Amino acid sequence: MKLCCIGSRGHWGYVFESIREVPGLELAGISSGCEDSVEKMRRRCADAGFSPREFGDWRKMLDELRPEVVCIDGPFEKHAEMCLEAFRRNIHIFCEKPISLTRSDLERLEQAAASSGSRIVSMVGLRYDPAFYTAWKHVRNGAVGKIKLLQCQKSYKLGQRPAFFHTRSTYGGTLPWVGSHAVDWILFFYGNSDFHSVFGTQSREDNFGNGEMEITAQCLFRMKSGVTASVSTDYLRPGAAPTHGDDRIRIAGTAGVLEVSGGKITLIDAKGPSEIIPETPDRKLFSDFILELEGVRPGLVDNAATFALTRACLLAQESADTGKVVFF
Amino acid sequence: MKLCCIGSRGHWGYVFESIREVPGLELAGISSGCEDSVEKMRRRCADAGFSPREFGDWRKMLDELRPEVVCIDGPFEKHAEMCLEAFRRNIHIFCEKPISLTRSDLERLEQAAASSGSRIVSMVGLRYDPAFYTAWKHVRNGAVGKIKLLQCQKSYKLGQRPAFFHTRSTYGGTLPWVGSHAVDWILFFYGNSDFHSVFGTQSREDNFGNGEMEITAQCLFRMKSGVTASVSTDYLRPGAAPTHGDDRIRIAGTAGVLEVSGGKITLIDAKGPSEIIPETPDRKLFSDFILELEGVRPGLVDNAATFALTRACLLAQESADTGKVVFF
Repeated sequence: MKLCCIGSRGHWGYVFESIREVPGLELAGISSGCEDSVEKMRRRCADAGFSPREFGDWRKMLDELRPEVVCIDGPFEKHAEMCLEAFRRNIHIFCEKPISLTRSDLERLEQAAASSGSRIVSMVGLRYDPAFYTAWKHVRNGAVGKIKLLQCQKSYKLGQRPAFFHTRSTYGGTLPWVGSHAVDWILFFYGNSDFHSVFGTQSREDNFGNGEMEITAQCLFRMKSGVTASVSTDYLRPGAAPTHGDDRIRIAGTAGVLEVSGGKITLIDAKGPSEIIPETPDRKLFSDFILELEGVRPGLVDNAATFALTRACLLAQESADTGKVVFF
Repeated sequence: MKLCCIGSRGHWGYVFESIREVPGLELAGISSGCEDSVEKMRRRCADAGFSPREFGDWRKMLDELRPEVVCIDGPFEKHAEMCLEAFRRNIHIFCEKPISLTRSDLERLEQAAASSGSRIVSMVGLRYDPAFYTAWKHVRNGAVGKIKLLQCQKSYKLGQRPAFFHTRSTYGGTLPWVGSHAVDWILFFYGNSDFHSVFGTQSREDNFGNGEMEITAQCLFRMKSGVTASVSTDYLRPGAAPTHGDDRIRIAGTAGVLEVSGGKITLIDAKGPSEIIPETPDRKLFSDFILELEGVRPGLVDNAATFALTRACLLAQESADTGKVVFF
């Protein structure tokens, strides 16, 4: 199977985390997909033992090399266009999330997917985190009974953000960028995407000179089932905190409450509180996708989940932008 | 100063927690305010060394004894009527929250307060909890810088709820009953009540036979300043959990993140993470109110905060009932 990589703006590093677990996968070509130098990508490939061809024009790369899979991690605002071109060429897509910054592009992608043989997965790497993956297995096995309420949190250190974070049109916004991980936990743990409506709030004020970037955002989803799911995101984690991110989920169900926080899993059920030791997952984000493509086993994410995640993030942002409830 | 007590449905026990700290306060009369037997109240008074007169008719008690202060803890749906009568008689009010189950009653109360000399405080006892009170002092002293985001959580064990919890008209709803504590933290920590809008969600399904009682509810407030504040409530804390309630707040600001959880306070700021040891507060809910009335010192809650809290809970519930954003 042949792989090409476009861009390194985000988390394309996931590829190298597990590319060696799928023997026979050839990293055939790279392109920055934009004005970025390809130097960084070349080095990363060399470190992993690959010497891909380099292209200034990513479309030309796809046409010449005709890969089965493409990793898309170019400028955020180009994700949709790049995915669209891949769908048209029946190339499977491993894309930084969100796969689209606008609803109209998302609809274009869904249409393209409908008439394409391509699978698409966005980089929802936290599904494969030991604590979240282990927690998920327990929840799927009934640890909390019927899920009734979810609270999700993503808190990041601000650090120095590249200039493209300062503009909505190139950054996309904090709910899609940071919030997407948390929204994906809702899809992952709750197991379906029966979103009913969403309300979002966000603030660009006090963002330490980061232009239009929202320093905080929260949103609250109502599911058709009556399940309620909240998401809190912020860039306010102090630089002196022990880790970059403070990722948490709390899931309350009819038979227990499970939480992930600080890499630990705690469960309170009828037997009282206990700690669940995170296991090393038996799968990794990128190879999970490739192994599904190769027919080895189903992966954790399907096209529908990828589209549902993108839609949920964009509607949450639309709500925060307009101050109105947005219905799915 | 003379005190009368009406009812013992909720937290009137706050009176006895600190009544001995305000010498000269006479507990002159009690009435259940409804069909409840007064026996339980009589015993509680006797245990505290008081032998108040007993009244079947609470209005008659107010008229005959003419107390300066009344503790109102009768049936939830009678809070508003009882407060109204107290306002009309210029009796200061210490009332179980929420002070009203409907917006129309709340407006009636605000009108009555405007032409009354009475002060009103509802039983926001968690302001006086060691961890929350200590956390508040640190936040007021700038521990997190400018507040940008709040997340509040109340999770209770379900236990056996009295029958009046099963009907909205006598229970009031989970957002006003459980959520009020969490909404009050927003007022308390954030320090003002510039609510802009709110969206609420709630679910009565899977409520273990508790009629109309919502087993879960969440709401998300947008403040006029852009600050975002979420509240999560549920009755899903397992019976085997170590404590009845799981009360938490997380406050993220421009200079740090402070949390209260499990009675502990943690702060992460520019110096890194630290634990703040909760102090024993120098005030208690009931005596704080009485000492303010006696001119000794200002209390933590004023009429405006009491009304703002009630309104915020009722509007959050209205949003959850209608599925629409409600504006303040």
